Amino acid sequence: MTSASADGSSPGGASGDARFFARTAPRTLQALAELAGATIRPPRADVVPADVRFMGVAPLQAAGADQVSFLDNRRYLEQLAGTGAGAVIVAPGFADKVPATAAALVTAQPYLAWARVAGAFHPRPAARPGIHPTACVDAAAEVDPRAEIAAFAMVGAGARIGAGTLVSAHAVIGPGVVVGQECRIGSHVSLSHALVGDRVTLFPGARIGQDGFGFALAPDGFVTVPQLGRVLIEDDVEVGANATIDRGSAQDTVIGAGSRLDNLVQIGHNVRLGRCCIVVSQAGISGSSVLGDFVTVAAQAGLIGHIRIGEKARIGAQCGVMSDVEAGADVIGSPAMPFREFFRNVATLRRLSRRLAARIGGPGADGGTI
Amino acid sequence: MTSASADGSSPGGASGDARFFARTAPRTLQALAELAGATIRPPRADVVPADVRFMGVAPLQAAGADQVSFLDNRRYLEQLAGTGAGAVIVAPGFADKVPATAAALVTAQPYLAWARVAGAFHPRPAARPGIHPTACVDAAAEVDPRAEIAAFAMVGAGARIGAGTLVSAHAVIGPGVVVGQECRIGSHVSLSHALVGDRVTLFPGARIGQDGFGFALAPDGFVTVPQLGRVLIEDDVEVGANATIDRGSAQDTVIGAGSRLDNLVQIGHNVRLGRCCIVVSQAGISGSSVLGDFVTVAAQAGLIGHIRIGEKARIGAQCGVMSDVEAGADVIGSPAMPFREFFRNVATLRRLSRRLAARIGGPGADGGTI
Amino acid sequence: MTSASADGSSPGGASGDARFFARTAPRTLQALAELAGATIRPPRADVVPADVRFMGVAPLQAAGADQVSFLDNRRYLEQLAGTGAGAVIVAPGFADKVPATAAALVTAQPYLAWARVAGAFHPRPAARPGIHPTACVDAAAEVDPRAEIAAFAMVGAGARIGAGTLVSAHAVIGPGVVVGQECRIGSHVSLSHALVGDRVTLFPGARIGQDGFGFALAPDGFVTVPQLGRVLIEDDVEVGANATIDRGSAQDTVIGAGSRLDNLVQIGHNVRLGRCCIVVSQAGISGSSVLGDFVTVAAQAGLIGHIRIGEKARIGAQCGVMSDVEAGADVIGSPAMPFREFFRNVATLRRLSRRLAARIGGPGADGGTI
Repeated sequence: MTSASADGSSPGGASGDARFFARTAPRTLQALAELAGATIRPPRADVVPADVRFMGVAPLQAAGADQVSFLDNRRYLEQLAGTGAGAVIVAPGFADKVPATAAALVTAQPYLAWARVAGAFHPRPAARPGIHPTACVDAAAEVDPRAEIAAFAMVGAGARIGAGTLVSAHAVIGPGVVVGQECRIGSHVSLSHALVGDRVTLFPGARIGQDGFGFALAPDGFVTVPQLGRVLIEDDVEVGANATIDRGSAQDTVIGAGSRLDNLVQIGHNVRLGRCCIVVSQAGISGSSVLGDFVTVAAQAGLIGHIRIGEKARIGAQCGVMSDVEAGADVIGSPAMPFREFFRNVATLRRLSRRLAARIGGPGADGGTI
Repeated sequence: MTSASADGSSPGGASGDARFFARTAPRTLQALAELAGATIRPPRADVVPADVRFMGVAPLQAAGADQVSFLDNRRYLEQLAGTGAGAVIVAPGFADKVPATAAALVTAQPYLAWARVAGAFHPRPAARPGIHPTACVDAAAEVDPRAEIAAFAMVGAGARIGAGTLVSAHAVIGPGVVVGQECRIGSHVSLSHALVGDRVTLFPGARIGQDGFGFALAPDGFVTVPQLGRVLIEDDVEVGANATIDRGSAQDTVIGAGSRLDNLVQIGHNVRLGRCCIVVSQAGISGSSVLGDFVTVAAQAGLIGHIRIGEKARIGAQCGVMSDVEAGADVIGSPAMPFREFFRNVATLRRLSRRLAARIGGPGADGGTI
Repeated sequence: MTSASADGSSPGGASGDARFFARTAPRTLQALAELAGATIRPPRADVVPADVRFMGVAPLQAAGADQVSFLDNRRYLEQLAGTGAGAVIVAPGFADKVPATAAALVTAQPYLAWARVAGAFHPRPAARPGIHPTACVDAAAEVDPRAEIAAFAMVGAGARIGAGTLVSAHAVIGPGVVVGQECRIGSHVSLSHALVGDRVTLFPGARIGQDGFGFALAPDGFVTVPQLGRVLIEDDVEVGANATIDRGSAQDTVIGAGSRLDNLVQIGHNVRLGRCCIVVSQAGISGSSVLGDFVTVAAQAGLIGHIRIGEKARIGAQCGVMSDVEAGADVIGSPAMPFREFFRNVATLRRLSRRLAARIGGPGADGGTI
């Protein structure tokens, strides 16, 4: 890998490569603790100077004395033991595992603290107000002067783009679309027939607002059913790269405030997600299904159409959901069943298979009858 | 959601937001009945004026007296009872459930009727002939003067674009590609090494004609196998957003006339689909498999390569098909098996698991032996 | 299909349609044998002239006397018997199935031989050095004069593009990105926060370098965790159409040299693939998982995060991997288990279901107890 290795890059390198990320530093340990909402268990004074000025963040195995790291998964305790970091964000239970050379920033929510500390060192770049000369903005579009419209982007007639919003290169915003403030519309996004709230992020290649999958069988083939609804994306939603959200057929497709959709997710027409739902990569939700607040749909799971998922339900990875799921339920398997039942089934089948194999191989192995 | 709510938008709002959809109205009840191929069961004359002029369509729960709605799924009977619609398209079995305030438009094919009525109120916009000044059309391309080439679109040397076809913004049509008449090539589509029929719709971000996944193992790594076939897309096909169709390796990849492919579908090289196949979202068909006419592949199903699926077979959601499927068969599960067998297996395993659990918990529960 | 059929196209047509593929011909049988690393079993001299000049390649059922074909799958023996090809590349075991009208090019690796022969007739087009007038290249980018930057492509500040590399139409190369030599960056690709080696191919619509899926729960919703790593793509990697590779959160996401990723694949943040891994269409690998060299992940398989897959392990189609997999293991099923165990389970369940059904239907059928 000529080009990459010429830069001395390695996967264990420090976070925040200056070619890609802006940095605001330094910060004192006290400032970090405030950001993190953490208490400080100081390093041994004879080992570490009290006035370290922290310059950034890094993973445990790569961090140096002027960097902050964190532990959120006990799989990585070994890396904690060997870290050279000057400070480590940890949960109370791991505070005494932080080596003496590092300050421990102790908090009940280390991942949240990490988000805030890392975000302070590397804030998201602001939109640079203005319209790139190659962009194609319709005369009848309203673009706030504090918005940025990047190269080759298009904004259709009647569309409105709010203050602080970035429409990235090659994005296409269709006629009449409304985008709120402080949004990030990624490169190559298609956005049509949609009303988008504030602080929404659409990652590159997301397809939002195209026709849903609807057709009726006629004697000479299929007849397309007009898709006359919209997509409503509420505030603080994020939609992953190359994800697809079809507009409603007669009602609207709705993505509830704060929801997070991962890459390659599919949302069918008329689907309604409640607040703060999580839909992980490659999962799909078929038309007209309705999810309550705080529902999690794990990777590659699929939901058939016209069902209801109660709030805080959790749908496991690769789960195939064919009927309603109660609030708070944990389901997995295809067809979906409670977690406990699924894993019991797996164990039962393994046991029966082995018994049967032993029976065929010869009498008595694994004994007993069921 | 400041921006959206400022418009008073709600998911139950009437279909056909004027910002996004053109409208042709009004229409009389008689005209609607003709479009729908339906008989009229009139509303009570003392409740509804006979000369209502219908202005559009809407879902049951949002429709007003000058709007048409429809019922195609008994889950929504409750909404039918409370509808304010002036007319409702229904199957004969539901005609007497239509409230007295509405005319019933009774037909054996309500969904098809709905497609025609909704499509009459909101016809698909026609292409606006001409080439946008920012488009990049090769001097050696043939673009029919009745075609529309939108902003930033590209048409390569030797490509041909038929009358009435729209090549949307940012689409890239490769050299030599042929696109027929009245097609809709969505924004950000890549289309290369392909011959496309008439009335074909490719939704945004579809990738058609790139190299199939073929390589041979050599002593020092993989060697790419040249992919020398094409993609043939026959008339009236629709391909969903961000779907991918690889060109053939030596033969062609063929999508049969009238077939409907949903978002994020994957079609491998040399695959051949018959007429009017349906491939639902996130399903994948591996290289060189052949589907007969009217095959349905449900969401997230996967087919291995080099198999044959007989006509009218139905492959269930998340099904994993590892061998040929007979014409007319219904299969599901991974590996695929007849629907009946799959659900019998599910029931058997549940029963055995519970019995085993009961046995372990203590004697006798759930009784019996198998 | 007016347009396509007007060209007399059919799926069985010869490979290498001149509208789409350049051709270098003719070649003698001897030259082909050298390319293929094959020994020649000549055709019957009374049937075939010794000095055939081969003009190209074609599938068995379409090839003529001046074309080369190949057999790599015994499913197609019937087509071999009837082929009109002048030469056929085959494994030694099939040499005597080649009809007398054709030369057999016999090699232990027919697919590799085919790759080389087909690639010689239809070499990959070279980049045409230069920057298209519509491209948008930052003044602070370094583009090698032997690179091609196509229409509407963007190259950001500080980015470097190596010699012989093609950046296709509408691709967006972010600031600071490094791309090596002889790469092919497909149309509509987004590439940011990444270092890319030599001879890398990214197919259209691939999304590389966007933020991983990371957020922490705060009292008022989710807080995004800054994603501060990069994507390292080593030499000779290929990434399929519309595939997505997120950049690392604190470490880097790494795609090992020679790896092949198919369409619509998802790679989460911090994932590390070893050398020559294969990830087939629609498979997904969750964050921070690590794959050894030569691992195969079949179509639609999914791996949870933070696990390790040993070298040369093979993950079957639709497999759901929830824990580490040993080197060399073959697993399938959801949850993953050894191939042998999976198919034994399938057989056991089928047997038990039938027995239970028979028991319920009446006594004695399928007899015995388990």
